[in-house]
Amino acid sequence: MSHITSYIQENLNRFLDELFVILRTPSVSSIPAHSPDMLNCAKQLVQALNFAGADFAEVFPTAGHPVVFGKKMIDPSLPTVLVYGHYDVQPIDPRNLWDSDPFEPEIRNGAIYGRGANDDKGQLFMHIKALEYLLRHNKLSCNVKFLLEGEEEIGSESLKAWAENHKDMLKCDAILVSDTTMLDEKVPSINCGMRGLAYLEVEVTGPNKDLHSGHYGGAVANPINELCAMIASLIDSNGKITVEGFYDDVLDLSVEERAMLARAPFEIEHYKKSIDINEVKGEVGYSTLERTGIRPCLDVNGIWGGFIGEGSKTVIPSQAFAKISMRLVPNQNHKKIAALFEKHFIKIASPCVTVKVKPHHGGQPFLTPISSEMYKTASNAIQEVYGIEPVPTRGGGSIPILADLQDILGVNPLLMGFGLERDTIHSPNESFLISQFTKGIEAIVKFFEGYSG
Amino acid sequence: MSHITSYIQENLNRFLDELFVILRTPSVSSIPAHSPDMLNCAKQLVQALNFAGADFAEVFPTAGHPVVFGKKMIDPSLPTVLVYGHYDVQPIDPRNLWDSDPFEPEIRNGAIYGRGANDDKGQLFMHIKALEYLLRHNKLSCNVKFLLEGEEEIGSESLKAWAENHKDMLKCDAILVSDTTMLDEKVPSINCGMRGLAYLEVEVTGPNKDLHSGHYGGAVANPINELCAMIASLIDSNGKITVEGFYDDVLDLSVEERAMLARAPFEIEHYKKSIDINEVKGEVGYSTLERTGIRPCLDVNGIWGGFIGEGSKTVIPSQAFAKISMRLVPNQNHKKIAALFEKHFIKIASPCVTVKVKPHHGGQPFLTPISSEMYKTASNAIQEVYGIEPVPTRGGGSIPILADLQDILGVNPLLMGFGLERDTIHSPNESFLISQFTKGIEAIVKFFEGYSG
Repeated sequence: MSHITSYIQENLNRFLDELFVILRTPSVSSIPAHSPDMLNCAKQLVQALNFAGADFAEVFPTAGHPVVFGKKMIDPSLPTVLVYGHYDVQPIDPRNLWDSDPFEPEIRNGAIYGRGANDDKGQLFMHIKALEYLLRHNKLSCNVKFLLEGEEEIGSESLKAWAENHKDMLKCDAILVSDTTMLDEKVPSINCGMRGLAYLEVEVTGPNKDLHSGHYGGAVANPINELCAMIASLIDSNGKITVEGFYDDVLDLSVEERAMLARAPFEIEHYKKSIDINEVKGEVGYSTLERTGIRPCLDVNGIWGGFIGEGSKTVIPSQAFAKISMRLVPNQNHKKIAALFEKHFIKIASPCVTVKVKPHHGGQPFLTPISSEMYKTASNAIQEVYGIEPVPTRGGGSIPILADLQDILGVNPLLMGFGLERDTIHSPNESFLISQFTKGIEAIVKFFEGYSG
Repeated sequence: MSHITSYIQENLNRFLDELFVILRTPSVSSIPAHSPDMLNCAKQLVQALNFAGADFAEVFPTAGHPVVFGKKMIDPSLPTVLVYGHYDVQPIDPRNLWDSDPFEPEIRNGAIYGRGANDDKGQLFMHIKALEYLLRHNKLSCNVKFLLEGEEEIGSESLKAWAENHKDMLKCDAILVSDTTMLDEKVPSINCGMRGLAYLEVEVTGPNKDLHSGHYGGAVANPINELCAMIASLIDSNGKITVEGFYDDVLDLSVEERAMLARAPFEIEHYKKSIDINEVKGEVGYSTLERTGIRPCLDVNGIWGGFIGEGSKTVIPSQAFAKISMRLVPNQNHKKIAALFEKHFIKIASPCVTVKVKPHHGGQPFLTPISSEMYKTASNAIQEVYGIEPVPTRGGGSIPILADLQDILGVNPLLMGFGLERDTIHSPNESFLISQFTKGIEAIVKFFEGYSG
């Protein structure tokens, strides 16, 4: 058994105890009431970094939730890796679908259950424990910096400006991130690209007040019916998004690239079973993996209007609302897409209603070249731990800030994620397999041992 | 000045004080937490009836909210009028749009403001005060019974069974109701018909849990998008409802009937201005008054799904929901329509989702003949008070229980309503003009003086 393997075994219970303290802190960035928890969580991470042996770790205020920055500089002449992670988590609703308290982590069937167990507290903590091991055994071969933010789940609105103001402090040769999934424990993979995001909120207003649906029904446009019709028209029968100009900047992949992507093992029946659906649905002419990896899409993430309480109310509401987001692929620009959407949505509105479109947040898609030193080092590290060469894939999700950091720091991020589809992040019963947690620490250790810039 | 006019002037402040006590009781029938308020309100009405001189008044339990029954029998050989009303009110949301506490009534610009000021506490209270006057001056020329329920706003689910069990007690020759509007103070009108209602709730389920919209977006049918597409398809470009068989039983009106209805003064610009819309919208080939009076319609009364809180959440929800109701016209059957809707809605669902349709409640439409003694007596009473012959109209709203009472008791209800469009019942800032309140009492007095069965 390798030295790192036995070290993890000997210290696993302590690692978990330390992680659970952080998981118990309800750092939900989208809910203002949780602001104090954000600061507490940031302080807990500073403690963890100091305990691991960082020579600097502090909480930095931003326009929003605080940022944690830490570092261990062993030799200025050696390359520096910046580890990015986020300590904020998604809301927990619907709470009633959780089998255990989302903020009282527990271990069931070899997995940690709780909000943030995986995304991203569990995954960023692997890097802190890898640093601890490397420092205690003098095996660190590069400088390491940590940038841990508290607004990833709400679009990293403050971090971009903060990073621009702390450009020198963040100076690095590479950005390493564990905030994504791999295809399977037996089919490790590395994300070489992520989709971007354009997230908007729409408001449809009809009459200036709620109306009695008996007195007015049939003569007045109902904002909910109008909103539904507008949303229905956004995707055509081929699964194509109807917003004018939406696909203009999309780069179609070559036959070779699509073939490479298709090497990733994928069982459609297993996929459907895992989420209990009878049929998949998406853009005609593309596989399910392509639909989530290399093609853009549009989803309504939330909708509300009228009487939604218990019982019934015969009302034509004055307004109806929806949160709508689009996932973008390389070469699409989220600001341009948001503008196209706004223009289109206002254009398709009936003269009977008025429409407001509010851009929420967004992020650029990006791509990490497989040819890079970073990718090769990560690929070797994973192969050593899993015994299999990882498959390069595309991530369907978005980490908008990574595209920004790429701009600001001029280096490519690499996404070495250890989550699995089963972990259901963002949903009730989020989890993280302990085996992935320990393998992740091992792989990160080997990366830091092997990285030479 | 007539005797009744001066009596009202002398006692108006007391009348209002007595009414305000009842308006302060938050009897919202659709919200279980208000159950105690329902009983309190019922007891307040028993007190009011006794004070007016009823020889019997009691609260009767039902399967749901209690019923108040009271009566004054002056001579078994004289005809008996049953006054129907309801003391339950609609929910107050959105609370922030009220200019004053919905349950602390106040008078502004000659009107009473508060939930229930009009619908129906204010209107039923006119009958109690009319009874008080007639008894104090020995002018009552028929027997009077009161049936005041607490579930009208939620479909009168318990009253039908209760009325069947108390058929003898409710025995009467006519049913008189003030729970509707008239066209205008200067254009008094009497409703000779009401639309029916079929109210359902739909549930669309996709994946068995909420999904990360980045990981799954583009490959999995989103229940909100699916629900919106289904709702959008329910009404075609001519404003016709697409549910198969929906119009089969609708009786088209004759040219003469439509012409008579068209006599009601109506200014489209004033109508649009009153609710601040640029254009009306409805079934092609019918006027606005016809669209709300003699034609059926479909409205989404509420919709919800996904993340509807502050901020953003990138989720594909497992489920989406909507409350959908249809207003029906004479000869349509609400049970048949609900069944047709359920069949249709399940039929149009994509194979990617499963759909549940839950009938909420409903009521039959009905029509009151203009040729009846009841109508003539009411018409004369209104003409005496307003100095104008009232216009016969159709009501767009629904009072399902009246159709049931018509069946059970075998007599026609007459809808002598004193509300005005400006009163915005069911909405924030519900109000009732004091001038309509006092004229209403006068007209009811004259009705009871003139009614000979």
